[in-house]
Amino acid sequence: MSMCPGDFDERALIKRALNVIRPCPFPVGPGDDSAVVEVDGAFLVIASDSVTLERHKPEGMTFEQFGWMSAAVNFSDIASMGGRPAALTLSLGIPDSLGAQEVCDIMSGADQCAEFCGAYIAGGDTKPGSGFVCGTAIGSMEGRKPMTRRGAVPGDLVAVTGPLGSPAAGYHAMMNGLIFPDAVDALCIPVPRIREGIALASSGIVTSCIDLSDGLATAALTICESSHAGMDLMLEFLPKGADVEDVSEETGVSEIDMMLNFGGEYELLFTFGKEDIGSLYDSGVNFTIIGTVTSGREARLVADDGVRRLEYGRY
Amino acid sequence: MSMCPGDFDERALIKRALNVIRPCPFPVGPGDDSAVVEVDGAFLVIASDSVTLERHKPEGMTFEQFGWMSAAVNFSDIASMGGRPAALTLSLGIPDSLGAQEVCDIMSGADQCAEFCGAYIAGGDTKPGSGFVCGTAIGSMEGRKPMTRRGAVPGDLVAVTGPLGSPAAGYHAMMNGLIFPDAVDALCIPVPRIREGIALASSGIVTSCIDLSDGLATAALTICESSHAGMDLMLEFLPKGADVEDVSEETGVSEIDMMLNFGGEYELLFTFGKEDIGSLYDSGVNFTIIGTVTSGREARLVADDGVRRLEYGRY
Repeated sequence: MSMCPGDFDERALIKRALNVIRPCPFPVGPGDDSAVVEVDGAFLVIASDSVTLERHKPEGMTFEQFGWMSAAVNFSDIASMGGRPAALTLSLGIPDSLGAQEVCDIMSGADQCAEFCGAYIAGGDTKPGSGFVCGTAIGSMEGRKPMTRRGAVPGDLVAVTGPLGSPAAGYHAMMNGLIFPDAVDALCIPVPRIREGIALASSGIVTSCIDLSDGLATAALTICESSHAGMDLMLEFLPKGADVEDVSEETGVSEIDMMLNFGGEYELLFTFGKEDIGSLYDSGVNFTIIGTVTSGREARLVADDGVRRLEYGRY
Repeated sequence: MSMCPGDFDERALIKRALNVIRPCPFPVGPGDDSAVVEVDGAFLVIASDSVTLERHKPEGMTFEQFGWMSAAVNFSDIASMGGRPAALTLSLGIPDSLGAQEVCDIMSGADQCAEFCGAYIAGGDTKPGSGFVCGTAIGSMEGRKPMTRRGAVPGDLVAVTGPLGSPAAGYHAMMNGLIFPDAVDALCIPVPRIREGIALASSGIVTSCIDLSDGLATAALTICESSHAGMDLMLEFLPKGADVEDVSEETGVSEIDMMLNFGGEYELLFTFGKEDIGSLYDSGVNFTIIGTVTSGREARLVADDGVRRLEYGRY
């Protein structure tokens, strides 16, 4: 996830780097939200993700919230596979400008997120550095089959676990000195969808799943690429998050941009066969159907005034 | 591990930060080389450590070697517990100055180290950043009891798994344009002592163990602090690594400094009861006895010309 635009082509670089390493024999290897590794008969989910002060801590976000977020990005990747978090490690790179209190605030925020997700901080290290927190979350599949990005089939329905756009609204509110506490909370204290991920994986009906940490557009395109399919999302179906409309009015940032093109969103995007919708209701997960998987190769946004192609990585 | 001196008090900061998080219920929590976590009946060893281009890549070290080292620091922490590595994740923070080729070289070096240690790269991420690689290694205890830093008992013998000082000699050789390939290899392609760690843990006689990634002096002091004991190391017993004598002569850096006060050393330091030395021979591990555990609280270096206290973190 990231909140600042940049011309760094992360996807191309990762693809190239993955070509120089040995293919790995694990049930799920590099290239998904998490890896799934079998160790001594246990199926583990492992996710590593980093945040930096420069790119991921807008002014107004506290260090405690930044710490929460550094943990949440990793637990969210466990959630999207359907894993249950157990442990978190953190490697901190601390700049001269940061005092011990700020470091403790970061750790405390991360620990609170770990507690919320049912996990503990198991270790890590602290070094002089430019202001980064690299987290690794480890969880368990507990016998469930992991949900991955591949497996969406044309005709499947596309759904999300909750409303969209509030983190973006929170960001733009903060940048403009506007008071929208719900949106700011959505940005600064994101909630990894652990319970939802476990319930979805337990249902056995999900054909693909990903979290929205790089935004809905990128998530949709990633499922399309991994599943060799297309996706049509219906603009009017997208559940609009708290304060999106008001912040859009006050800042001029479009609602669509907030709902589709902003990282730092932690709902799950998933696909399933139409015929299984009963099981999805039985799972107890709140969801909103927002589109369908197509036999094309594009992810598209369908609106009353026309159809547009979604694009990767505006953020 | 680190190779550059600095006034950053990492130990004090980590201690303070560990006070703000919940105590964790794992067999081994934060504060040792690795954590040991039980997940679905499997006992996992998990270690996170980071390296930065600025502090850990001297001029003359290739990016491939830097990648190897970024993996080795983590596998070495698995080794010191007696774990068998299974997987590695890497989070890279890439500065503008680094091209895709360098990133691939780092990944390739890390993968070669993983292969050497019997593990695979399972995932990670790549972001714009200041030039850091945060690794997390996951291994298995396979039923062995983990070796920790606590447990050294007065009267125990102190041993290392191999010669000391070559990485420091390699560093000073490189800095002075001297050609000492063995020492430079020891610095740039460090060998995590996986086989030795597994054999030592299997023997069941080790009372404490730590790797030397922060240097022998810091390792000895850490065992003393964790075990509430002291340690006397005999200068004349210390096994001198390749090129240490020659580089010392040519650069004026003392041999003692190279053997005691330089990070980037990957032998294991461990303690055991005198009466168990037969089992240690049976384990097949090469070792050199270098001292004894005392009932004091200091770690000391005993030489013909007197006794000196060891000090933390000169590097």
